[in-house]
Amino acid sequence: MFITFEGLDFSGKSTQVQLLTDRLSQEKHKVLVLREPGSTTIGEKIRSILLDKQSLGMADLTELFLFSASRSQLVHEVIQPALEQGTIVVCDRFYDSSTAYQGWGRGVSLEAIRTINRAATSGLVPDITFFMDIPIQEVEKRMHQQKSGADRMESSGKAFYERVRNGYLRLAQEEQGHFEVLDGLRPIEEIHHIIWSRFQRQAAHLREESR
Amino acid sequence: MFITFEGLDFSGKSTQVQLLTDRLSQEKHKVLVLREPGSTTIGEKIRSILLDKQSLGMADLTELFLFSASRSQLVHEVIQPALEQGTIVVCDRFYDSSTAYQGWGRGVSLEAIRTINRAATSGLVPDITFFMDIPIQEVEKRMHQQKSGADRMESSGKAFYERVRNGYLRLAQEEQGHFEVLDGLRPIEEIHHIIWSRFQRQAAHLREESR
Repeated sequence: MFITFEGLDFSGKSTQVQLLTDRLSQEKHKVLVLREPGSTTIGEKIRSILLDKQSLGMADLTELFLFSASRSQLVHEVIQPALEQGTIVVCDRFYDSSTAYQGWGRGVSLEAIRTINRAATSGLVPDITFFMDIPIQEVEKRMHQQKSGADRMESSGKAFYERVRNGYLRLAQEEQGHFEVLDGLRPIEEIHHIIWSRFQRQAAHLREESR
Repeated sequence: MFITFEGLDFSGKSTQVQLLTDRLSQEKHKVLVLREPGSTTIGEKIRSILLDKQSLGMADLTELFLFSASRSQLVHEVIQPALEQGTIVVCDRFYDSSTAYQGWGRGVSLEAIRTINRAATSGLVPDITFFMDIPIQEVEKRMHQQKSGADRMESSGKAFYERVRNGYLRLAQEEQGHFEVLDGLRPIEEIHHIIWSRFQRQAAHLREESR
């Protein structure tokens, strides 16, 4: 089973990834947790270029291609082999991030992104995508509480994050089959409970299918 | 004017790039010579990842995306501004290399490559593409004479280079407008003469158009 988490930074994604994978491990599932970009030797090299992007004056499309390069390596080298062995793969961000950030956020052609995403993943689609939705004011609040990343918000502007969030909500409408929108303002344990129920339903569904 | 050179390694591309740009400079044209991948800070970082590709077990699509990332940065940061200032830009390899090597050579979907190329270049098409065509036996011969690159040929196999060459020839048929196939077995000065004539024709044509 292939599960991805999407959302703005500070939406609580990483906390929920942690809670889910801890529980999966406790229940003796084989689990693999990955982050994007990175998680391969090539991906980490690409990540380090991306971290410098502002100082380097990186073009939006260059950014998209670098994320896609990291992603295709991850799919080919890690995700596909793991899925074939029955491992549950949990990925913190996947191709929907490109659609939301580079497409809706930066204005890169959604048509081009769709083709690029399909190529980068060899057509692999997540079984479940959890989208942690929070309002932009809440992102700002959490940012200041954690005293980090404030420059990032400053530099791209609130309007950018609004577009990204709305892009995610559009995706959730278009991809209802596997998209699960979670209210990121709910208590952590409550969100985890919803995630776990959805996981169990999907697991039952897959057992049903493989009979 | 935007001029690209394409062909297999050892086809004599770089020699002809040099002869053309020297002559352009002598005749007081503003000229910019670029190579792919590279020619920007980001592009050179990407180039260094690509040089390691064998040791890193790079997927074919990852390679395609890294070339495209370098290319989109080059177009955005260097080529477009230079063309707007009336500079003649000469590029050693451009998007046709992706089609020939990753597409025809490695079997990546030509349809996907077409979309990716168009995105990476924001639709920029060269005014002239010189394709230096030589038979694979000649590549081998020159390789051994120069005592370099022999491993590369060994590792990818002759069949791969045959596919790449045939891919270029297909492109030349499909893109007759701006593709100029040059017989790489002709003497260097003779090839340069053909290139220079073609450049002059194109320059006259552009002067005509801008009237």
